[in-house]
Amino acid sequence: MSAAEGDFGLIGLAVMGQNLILNAADHGFKVVAFNRTVAKVDRFMENEAKGKSVIGAKSIKDFVQKLKTPRRMMLLVQAGKAVDDFIEALLTEGGVEKGDIIIDGGNSHYPDTNRRTKYLASKGIRFVGTGVSGGEEGARYGPSIMPGGNEEAWPYIKDVLQGISAKSDGEACCQWVGDEGAGHYVKMVHNGIEYGDMQLICEAYDIMKRGLGMSGKEMGDVFTEWNKGVLDSFLIEITRDIMYFNDDDNSPLVEKILDSAGQKGTGKWTAINALDLGMPVTLIGEAVFARCLSSLKAERTRASTKLDGPTPKFEGDKKQFLADLEQALYASKIISYAQGFMLIQNAAKEYSWKLNKPEIALMWRGGCIIRSVFLKDITKAYRSNPDLENLLFDDFFNAAIHKAQPGWRNVVSKGALWGIPTPAFSTALSFYDGYRTKDLPANLLQAQRDYFGAHTFRIKPEAASETYPEGKDIHVNWTGRGGNVSASTYTA
Amino acid sequence: MSAAEGDFGLIGLAVMGQNLILNAADHGFKVVAFNRTVAKVDRFMENEAKGKSVIGAKSIKDFVQKLKTPRRMMLLVQAGKAVDDFIEALLTEGGVEKGDIIIDGGNSHYPDTNRRTKYLASKGIRFVGTGVSGGEEGARYGPSIMPGGNEEAWPYIKDVLQGISAKSDGEACCQWVGDEGAGHYVKMVHNGIEYGDMQLICEAYDIMKRGLGMSGKEMGDVFTEWNKGVLDSFLIEITRDIMYFNDDDNSPLVEKILDSAGQKGTGKWTAINALDLGMPVTLIGEAVFARCLSSLKAERTRASTKLDGPTPKFEGDKKQFLADLEQALYASKIISYAQGFMLIQNAAKEYSWKLNKPEIALMWRGGCIIRSVFLKDITKAYRSNPDLENLLFDDFFNAAIHKAQPGWRNVVSKGALWGIPTPAFSTALSFYDGYRTKDLPANLLQAQRDYFGAHTFRIKPEAASETYPEGKDIHVNWTGRGGNVSASTYTA
Repeated sequence: MSAAEGDFGLIGLAVMGQNLILNAADHGFKVVAFNRTVAKVDRFMENEAKGKSVIGAKSIKDFVQKLKTPRRMMLLVQAGKAVDDFIEALLTEGGVEKGDIIIDGGNSHYPDTNRRTKYLASKGIRFVGTGVSGGEEGARYGPSIMPGGNEEAWPYIKDVLQGISAKSDGEACCQWVGDEGAGHYVKMVHNGIEYGDMQLICEAYDIMKRGLGMSGKEMGDVFTEWNKGVLDSFLIEITRDIMYFNDDDNSPLVEKILDSAGQKGTGKWTAINALDLGMPVTLIGEAVFARCLSSLKAERTRASTKLDGPTPKFEGDKKQFLADLEQALYASKIISYAQGFMLIQNAAKEYSWKLNKPEIALMWRGGCIIRSVFLKDITKAYRSNPDLENLLFDDFFNAAIHKAQPGWRNVVSKGALWGIPTPAFSTALSFYDGYRTKDLPANLLQAQRDYFGAHTFRIKPEAASETYPEGKDIHVNWTGRGGNVSASTYTA
Repeated sequence: MSAAEGDFGLIGLAVMGQNLILNAADHGFKVVAFNRTVAKVDRFMENEAKGKSVIGAKSIKDFVQKLKTPRRMMLLVQAGKAVDDFIEALLTEGGVEKGDIIIDGGNSHYPDTNRRTKYLASKGIRFVGTGVSGGEEGARYGPSIMPGGNEEAWPYIKDVLQGISAKSDGEACCQWVGDEGAGHYVKMVHNGIEYGDMQLICEAYDIMKRGLGMSGKEMGDVFTEWNKGVLDSFLIEITRDIMYFNDDDNSPLVEKILDSAGQKGTGKWTAINALDLGMPVTLIGEAVFARCLSSLKAERTRASTKLDGPTPKFEGDKKQFLADLEQALYASKIISYAQGFMLIQNAAKEYSWKLNKPEIALMWRGGCIIRSVFLKDITKAYRSNPDLENLLFDDFFNAAIHKAQPGWRNVVSKGALWGIPTPAFSTALSFYDGYRTKDLPANLLQAQRDYFGAHTFRIKPEAASETYPEGKDIHVNWTGRGGNVSASTYTA
């Protein structure tokens, strides 16, 4: 039996797991590596991990025994059953002990993390569910890490997790998020926002390509410029690279890639959670649906021969239009993050989690896929006013969105006239216009519901009267034919 | 003990229940009425039911004993626990017997109906979950009825349900939908579509009111006209009435109604189901989110003082613009129904239900809230080709949407420039433009995902080569810095 010399253990040697191990080894931790298929451990030890402070484990038991107590063990395996299976294996074969810490670093759904935190607490094991974002590169050189769960574990894992995490202006992009599934919840919203950011960039690309007839090189140059301004971010940077990336025949590889995107993951969960909490997170919703539509490639191909539209014809100052497009993307992004934080704010209330908005923005500033200069401004906004009701009320973003408006409206309007779909740009604008409207047309909707279903309505305070008092559920006999019963127990 | 002379029993005397009883009595059935609060039975018997062939029951046992076998018993109680409670009460206190039929006519969620159908089948009781739509008036004089569940029950209940249902050109708006929760599923989608129809009308109203500065009377006149054309429908008709309905001070009552709408129901379920099945039912999604946004009235009121927008200034031919608006509403509605049927088609596959599209359209033609001339055209489309892949491929709707396009685009474009939110009009147009696009920008999205997460992509068949073969999962080293591991077990 080997000595327990490992500082940190990691199970799951796919790309993220391997890179996190190398990252932790670089930061002076002795890491124990394990994988269900043990041959993968050997391969890893002989190649990527060679000469690093990494120890391979031959079994779950060996893995556990090689770690110092309280053991710090991270799972980076597929979300779902594999996580539960490894937890059970650690409890039984592995022989973990009270006080040990199990960290699930995969993309688990937060209700599962709620459940696992409670279950393991009942066995004296401290469970942490953490979001890890940053892709391959992030995992290797510093990801964004969003841990939540059993807070007792935090003092023991803080050094490792903050050590391997990204830094932004000297601050670690890894802070304690909250109880139970709060870490995975925040990661879920992060991913939803990532869906939105990517969809927005796709719409800008489509408008440049089909609306303005630009080449890959020209678009690459635009993304290069944008990456120096308010849109400066990882996703714009890689889009620039992708635009410049040519195949052997010297034409952009991206144009050859099948336009069919998967979606059954965290973006969908975010949209469903938004619906469940009744928060209008429309941009993520549209981004998820855009992926669904993209996946109907065969049907779309048939539709393209049956359904006509206008031929985009750009006239005017192209440079000015590109500036408008930049503003459309920026404004839509502001809306998306405002919606995301509305959701987080509401979840904190609903689930009784203390979610710290400035620290969440900080965690997203570096390391992760949505990292950007933009998130620095969001961190600043929430630091200067942690009770900020809405991001749009912050002076900086308020000024930014007002400045962006004319260009944004122009782009959405042109997309509609040209026949180029802009679901995310459009929904962002509709949200903005709806949010800033004191009197929306939902009064008519309430009248309709009362008309056909006796669902009752309330009166606007400023219009209250003796007949129609404020705060009362009112039913009107719109036609003179209805009965005197209201729909107290039935909703049509 | 009284004789078992009842043809049909109904539990739940809220507005829908009372009206269905009176409806059944009018059609020659002897109806047994019961309610948990028995005083309500007495009140009903002394008032609305007086002189009709209705018998009041004093207890669950009395209710059951007053019915001929096999008993046909309908619950019209609040969805959820109340349904399970009454089922248990019927099984125990009530003493129902093998072969008896329990029909749940409330707005139950279809997975509950799946469960109850199986559970009651195991006890020899035939369970049916049926959607009932039509509001007060519909329930009284002929609703749309969408039954599914244990098909053995259908021959026994067909006469009652088709008897009380609406008729459309002599055909009953009540047909057997399918196994298990299929009936409630179709009702759920119906309600989602209803959310969409109402939101579309609200957007048209908002544009007329704020964009064109029209009065209630003027808008009422427009809805009157629209109700004679392609939009001829119950919802347009009641909107016309609402526009004309003045308060005592001779101003439209609708303007005094609080613009805050509830949403936690079947519309939300439809949107969640669409996300789960990966179908881009964007219009219902936006309609649900629009209700969510409407309910944030206090926050919107504060936002209205902080967020500016343009002042709508209409110039041009108002009559022409109103024609465009009609076309925008019509085209968006076509999209919404096309999306709804895409969802139904997919659900049929997913849940192995035989859902009959022409019969579903027929059921929605009369009696229910979304009844319209439009649904006659949909019925025709699916009758002439039951395998129609998409409603937009039908000649009639294909021509209709092409004709509607210019006006539709003009309205969406103007909404964006005027600052009037059009989430449903816009998302419908984006869907149309996305659906008819062979090459969407999701190719960039797939490149991004491969860049940051080694998620791999596929190549367009027409661009396949030896380096990039068709149908293979391809990973490219976009920067030259990535490793040679793909993200087989981890998705960032």
